[in-house]
Amino acid sequence: MRLADIPTPALVLDRRVLLRNIAAMHRAVSRHGVALRPHMKTAKSIDVARLALGATSTGIAVSTLAEAEYFLGHDLPDMIYTVGITPQKLDQVGKLNAAGAAIMVVTDDVGCAAAIAAHPTAPRTLIEIDTGEGRGGVAADDPQLEELAARLGPLLAGVMTHGGHSYAGRGAADMARIAEAERSGVAAAAARLTAAGHPMRIVSMGSSPTALHTASLAGVTELRAGVYMFGDLFQAEIGTHGDSDLALTVLASVIGRKPGSVLLDAGAIALSKDRSTAATTRDRGYGLMLDLAGQRSYGTAILLQAWQEHSLVELDPDAHAPQLAVGARVRIAPNHACLTAAAHDRYFVVEDGDAVVAVWPRVGGW
Amino acid sequence: MRLADIPTPALVLDRRVLLRNIAAMHRAVSRHGVALRPHMKTAKSIDVARLALGATSTGIAVSTLAEAEYFLGHDLPDMIYTVGITPQKLDQVGKLNAAGAAIMVVTDDVGCAAAIAAHPTAPRTLIEIDTGEGRGGVAADDPQLEELAARLGPLLAGVMTHGGHSYAGRGAADMARIAEAERSGVAAAAARLTAAGHPMRIVSMGSSPTALHTASLAGVTELRAGVYMFGDLFQAEIGTHGDSDLALTVLASVIGRKPGSVLLDAGAIALSKDRSTAATTRDRGYGLMLDLAGQRSYGTAILLQAWQEHSLVELDPDAHAPQLAVGARVRIAPNHACLTAAAHDRYFVVEDGDAVVAVWPRVGGW
Repeated sequence: MRLADIPTPALVLDRRVLLRNIAAMHRAVSRHGVALRPHMKTAKSIDVARLALGATSTGIAVSTLAEAEYFLGHDLPDMIYTVGITPQKLDQVGKLNAAGAAIMVVTDDVGCAAAIAAHPTAPRTLIEIDTGEGRGGVAADDPQLEELAARLGPLLAGVMTHGGHSYAGRGAADMARIAEAERSGVAAAAARLTAAGHPMRIVSMGSSPTALHTASLAGVTELRAGVYMFGDLFQAEIGTHGDSDLALTVLASVIGRKPGSVLLDAGAIALSKDRSTAATTRDRGYGLMLDLAGQRSYGTAILLQAWQEHSLVELDPDAHAPQLAVGARVRIAPNHACLTAAAHDRYFVVEDGDAVVAVWPRVGGW
Repeated sequence: MRLADIPTPALVLDRRVLLRNIAAMHRAVSRHGVALRPHMKTAKSIDVARLALGATSTGIAVSTLAEAEYFLGHDLPDMIYTVGITPQKLDQVGKLNAAGAAIMVVTDDVGCAAAIAAHPTAPRTLIEIDTGEGRGGVAADDPQLEELAARLGPLLAGVMTHGGHSYAGRGAADMARIAEAERSGVAAAAARLTAAGHPMRIVSMGSSPTALHTASLAGVTELRAGVYMFGDLFQAEIGTHGDSDLALTVLASVIGRKPGSVLLDAGAIALSKDRSTAATTRDRGYGLMLDLAGQRSYGTAILLQAWQEHSLVELDPDAHAPQLAVGARVRIAPNHACLTAAAHDRYFVVEDGDAVVAVWPRVGGW
């Protein structure tokens, strides 16, 4: 099977780039002597998980209970479900844990911690610490921290934080600074709880940019990261990886052409409407058009508009690329790999040129 | 089953509102004595299709070949695949037509028209006319129009246009003006081709706003529309329907709370990152939080931020709504129903309150 034979739109994963990105993360993490816990929220694939797990990995992170069930079914039982738990979801977690999983959950809420402690199949739990993102978590110096720990008692397995505010940073120096805030915050929370008599088995932090750029991991036991495996236009802009480290693209066909533009059959569903590069110095619209080999033969050919199943590419007059007929195949580099991949149910895996060497399923839904 | 028992996030469809929206479109179209061809790109569900098909409907429109295969499998063979065809997709269309479908395809490209004519299972074809949207199609006065028709010969079934530029309009007067451009353009193209000896069995136009607001359909044989069935925040803003006509919402759980805000477990995947209301006078962020019954008990509670599986809602201080604990259930009205629905594989159908009266599957992918 070749990329030229696959119905479009379709998700393409370059295994060489994937392996290179995975190796770069392992190199970065191994400097610190801590474990990497690959976050499978981006890839949602057992085939990718097996490549991403390294010698020091103790398990994975997941963003949905559908992922938890899927990875348990593929013999990866050790995981953190990183989205704040609700009391109602504890039954499903308990069912999976009874079936052999070792799912840890996350909370920052005293009422929820009490519900966890009262549940007949109460899972081990991490307290979420806010180290600057402002999404979930209690601050490391919040008086609620001890109360949360007291409610959880022996269920308390540790603390975790997510340095998602690194997405507002640009380049290595920014990322190192944000990573240090992440590290010092979660380590301080762990130290407070340890002093209060709670053993901290897990002190977990992470985002791809901070995992790659942190100078120290003192007090931290593991790093979580996910999007680094694939990379995307936004991560390239903020310095997580280089422009040639994009493992994930969307295969599309030309369905129309006008002077200066072409229309593709990959639209807002196949790509997502993520516009994260709009906040960078190189706005890539809804993506960047590449050739069938994933190369930038079309120059700066940006998807300026995206409808449900169509996108309009403004051609680069300086690219001197061959004209594209209706039916021609191209690939699109997306702004945000996590959201683009989420619309698809499988990867068409390539290595060199356009030969498809494998088809890897992925899990969706919740 | 009640909404309180369903894992979140999940897609909720209010059947009463759905039936009301469908009835409103039937009333609007029946004034003109033309057929309604429901576009199933939004709902992608046989259960919704059966309600949307009226006495005058001759078939449906679809946006993917996955929809085509699904609706053929549910005894709805007559359809237009409305995304410009490529030569490579003709084999799949031919396979479905050999299995009993009557799929018509769309092109605006002379090379593609020649490929259609040369294909062993050539389907009936419509020429796409651009009546102002600037996406696909040739202009009604484009010299290529006769050449396209000549290439297609007896395969030519008619012409179609999409008044998608109506999304830039606001209110009934704008929509009536854009609808008239759509009608007069596609009718002029049909008249030119009729004069050139090509019988025009189908002269198709449509978008939900123009279908509802057009003053005349002289020269047009059918209207296509899809999003009107569900409605969404953007369609409410541009005047397609009222604020209480939103049939589609996303069920979510509160997973965190801070003074003035709550965190929900429905994020960019469950909702999409569509920001279409940003271009209206009432920017709704990534959606508007409603109560479990779908009512606006929380006032103007807007989803200001959306991450992959989280969203942050800024609470309305004037709403005087009860505090939301972690685990509380809410519903979210989305900006763009087509993209929000696309992330889900089923509808939880409600009628009154939170009792689930049916679960309707939907088809995804391509």
